[in-house]
Amino acid sequence: MKKVLVSVSARHLHVTAADLAALFGEGFELSNKKDLIQPGQFATNERVTVVGPKGEIAGVSILGPVRPATQVELSLTDARKLGLAAPVRESGMLAGSPGCKLIGPVGEVEITEGVIAAKRHVHLSPAQGAEFGLKDRQVVEVKITTADRTTTFGDVVVRVDKNYTAEMHVDTDEANAAGCSGEVWGEILG
Amino acid sequence: MKKVLVSVSARHLHVTAADLAALFGEGFELSNKKDLIQPGQFATNERVTVVGPKGEIAGVSILGPVRPATQVELSLTDARKLGLAAPVRESGMLAGSPGCKLIGPVGEVEITEGVIAAKRHVHLSPAQGAEFGLKDRQVVEVKITTADRTTTFGDVVVRVDKNYTAEMHVDTDEANAAGCSGEVWGEILG
Repeated sequence: MKKVLVSVSARHLHVTAADLAALFGEGFELSNKKDLIQPGQFATNERVTVVGPKGEIAGVSILGPVRPATQVELSLTDARKLGLAAPVRESGMLAGSPGCKLIGPVGEVEITEGVIAAKRHVHLSPAQGAEFGLKDRQVVEVKITTADRTTTFGDVVVRVDKNYTAEMHVDTDEANAAGCSGEVWGEILG
Repeated sequence: MKKVLVSVSARHLHVTAADLAALFGEGFELSNKKDLIQPGQFATNERVTVVGPKGEIAGVSILGPVRPATQVELSLTDARKLGLAAPVRESGMLAGSPGCKLIGPVGEVEITEGVIAAKRHVHLSPAQGAEFGLKDRQVVEVKITTADRTTTFGDVVVRVDKNYTAEMHVDTDEANAAGCSGEVWGEILG
């Protein structure tokens, strides 16, 4: 059985160095609050307000390190509240996605694109991919068994890279739909 | 193929006649804004604020007619925001669920139980149940196929009753997890 740890991605954003400077001030560096499971990635203490045409959400965490493009990852529940038609996209696939306003303690940034709902995915190292017989970009189903809301997620993209380790990412809508709480494992089918 | 229309239940509540009187005034009657698909059920224009220990949500719609018990149906996203540990329950199964405060235009009500996340379910008339070969309380899987988030929901309870007609109910977390938009049909498996 191919089992993978399931992590819930709460709403968050990634920022460019330039947007970080605009939001938090010149020379500001992201703090490392906690290493995430994916190597090199970390939660920070830095939070911003995300503003859309219909509302705003304060306290949205930035994940580090800085990236080549600013990207806001919301649940579709969040996106609806903000009035943003966030498409379901893989990380970095931002063309045609809506923008929004970001408010930091020092300044504001208006991004013209970058608001997405993350496409659910499984990270694997090359060795784990070989062990599971899965290739980069393969699409699989993952079954999450819970007491009241067992769910099989289709359209799960497998990403294999030397910088990854085994972990599935779902957003809060997906985690709630499957009744996830505590440590959750998924079974990769097929 | 057993296909069923999927409807998304946004957060809402059902109220007793006594709680309606406390919230909206003696003698107040629920307005029928729109008939729902299930016979005799209707959306109303009446809205209240639902208050939990960590927050509140304004503008939560009451569905009519009045019922023997007041029941607040939230998504788990909503419940977390309010700080309420809403269990996943079938309608009416309220024992041990948390309470909350309800604020209406005339008065407030403190309920001691009744906040739940609805267990996903399919309504069928007896004739539809016979046609599909499904019995009341049978548990099935329903597959919802969408462009980016095809999802198979397990733990779907079938309810067969002469007052029902064919319709699946999911909450907003579930609808978003499956990428539902517009008219959506599910396929009952097995």
